Amino acid sequence: MAHRTVFFLSDQTGVTAETLGHSLLTQFEEHEFDQITLPFIDSVDKAEAAIRHINAVSSETGARPIIFSTLVHEDLRNRFLHASGLFLDFFKTFLGPLEQELQAKSSLTSGRAHGISDTGKYDERIEATNFAINYDDGGSTVGYDKADVILIGVSRSGKTPTCLYLAMHYGIFAANYPLAEDDLETGELPRVLRPFRDKLYGLTIDPDRLVQIRKERRAAGQYASPKQVTFELRGAEAMFRKYQIPHINVTSFSVEEISSKILSSTNVERRINN
Amino acid sequence: MAHRTVFFLSDQTGVTAETLGHSLLTQFEEHEFDQITLPFIDSVDKAEAAIRHINAVSSETGARPIIFSTLVHEDLRNRFLHASGLFLDFFKTFLGPLEQELQAKSSLTSGRAHGISDTGKYDERIEATNFAINYDDGGSTVGYDKADVILIGVSRSGKTPTCLYLAMHYGIFAANYPLAEDDLETGELPRVLRPFRDKLYGLTIDPDRLVQIRKERRAAGQYASPKQVTFELRGAEAMFRKYQIPHINVTSFSVEEISSKILSSTNVERRINN
Repeated sequence: MAHRTVFFLSDQTGVTAETLGHSLLTQFEEHEFDQITLPFIDSVDKAEAAIRHINAVSSETGARPIIFSTLVHEDLRNRFLHASGLFLDFFKTFLGPLEQELQAKSSLTSGRAHGISDTGKYDERIEATNFAINYDDGGSTVGYDKADVILIGVSRSGKTPTCLYLAMHYGIFAANYPLAEDDLETGELPRVLRPFRDKLYGLTIDPDRLVQIRKERRAAGQYASPKQVTFELRGAEAMFRKYQIPHINVTSFSVEEISSKILSSTNVERRINN
Repeated sequence: MAHRTVFFLSDQTGVTAETLGHSLLTQFEEHEFDQITLPFIDSVDKAEAAIRHINAVSSETGARPIIFSTLVHEDLRNRFLHASGLFLDFFKTFLGPLEQELQAKSSLTSGRAHGISDTGKYDERIEATNFAINYDDGGSTVGYDKADVILIGVSRSGKTPTCLYLAMHYGIFAANYPLAEDDLETGELPRVLRPFRDKLYGLTIDPDRLVQIRKERRAAGQYASPKQVTFELRGAEAMFRKYQIPHINVTSFSVEEISSKILSSTNVERRINN
């Protein structure tokens, strides 16, 4: 496999540069990339130190690094044009066409894409995160009227991380309720969920994958046995169909994809736009 | 304020397109943007529906929308060149230079930047998230030897969301422990934390902001009183200094920024690179 070093440069956290870089790098499956993030490059000194770092890697490896930059300030950005690397400049590339289209000059403040731009929004996100934790795993059900969505599914079907992602990324109030053996035997929707049928969303998963996940948690006993897992999943899916609860099989999806699919297939609205 | 509609187009979740767009749009403070995400555009039919949507908004508002696209497939992408909007094509712009630099053709698979590319990584992230929940708020301390970092601070200083972000984004095992009144009075590091001094990281915050945050949670009583809050924060900061615990004042930082600063100022290493 071919190796190459990749730098993510930012005057802020580097999260944007990483996100954009990763989505491009996944297109080159024959390469392996060593990744180095250099965040908070907000002075000439730090920029020069970053350039020395890049040049050193270039000489050591004999291949010039790839540099993904979200640096906003031109005076810092321009210094990297002389570094030994392929400099891919996310800001410069799109800022020009945007300025022309909007007939406006950009403010060229350091990218606050992942900063606190608005305290109200920030609070909303924290509130949503606390809600997800308090209403995790059926921990409490008394505040379900405040929930935007209630995820239901068997143990380890991905409810908790999805709720947290919905909260942290979109400010959505997401509760989750585990379907227990009793519920699955009768096939009846648990009593506490009945008043909230329009907020329910089901998660299911392939039995093989769930066996694997559960084994990592608790190898012994019937919890991770194929028989038990299949019984539970069949019961859950029958319940989703019986009560016409929208649902998704999460087996091949990441938490981001599951969250995005829930948003795009329901009326649940994001409370923040990041 | 000038208004403009913005579309985020993706054959996957749209997270990358949104990230790119948001970081650019924050540079235009005089504009207000109505944002519409169209995810999972993976067929000609869906592309054509998106184009009709864009054209309709363009006629209704009298201003052509801005389109941030991370569509990977050229045949879908090219259709949008005829839509009534400014089409900013993330893939086309950067794939060319990358292909040339790496002397390789991109695989042009749909962007899996936010997909499950690797089940092992996925499990690591879920494990880290479960760890953060189990070790939240001093809930358990018996597994602190497994922690990569233990955040300490007074109630509502941002420990929980930071731990969750570190877990979900970087796969880091992050616990958190609340400094209680007793600890703050004596100024001594709580006994359970002493074996883990090299894993500790302190969070502090300005008193005014903490009063505001606590009031939203519980307005009455001394919990949110300026006197109490100031006492607690002074005690926490004195403890950080006494034991030389690295720390950060989180007042003007987002969860992403706090997480990024912890990573860049300690030896804590990310377990996943997204």
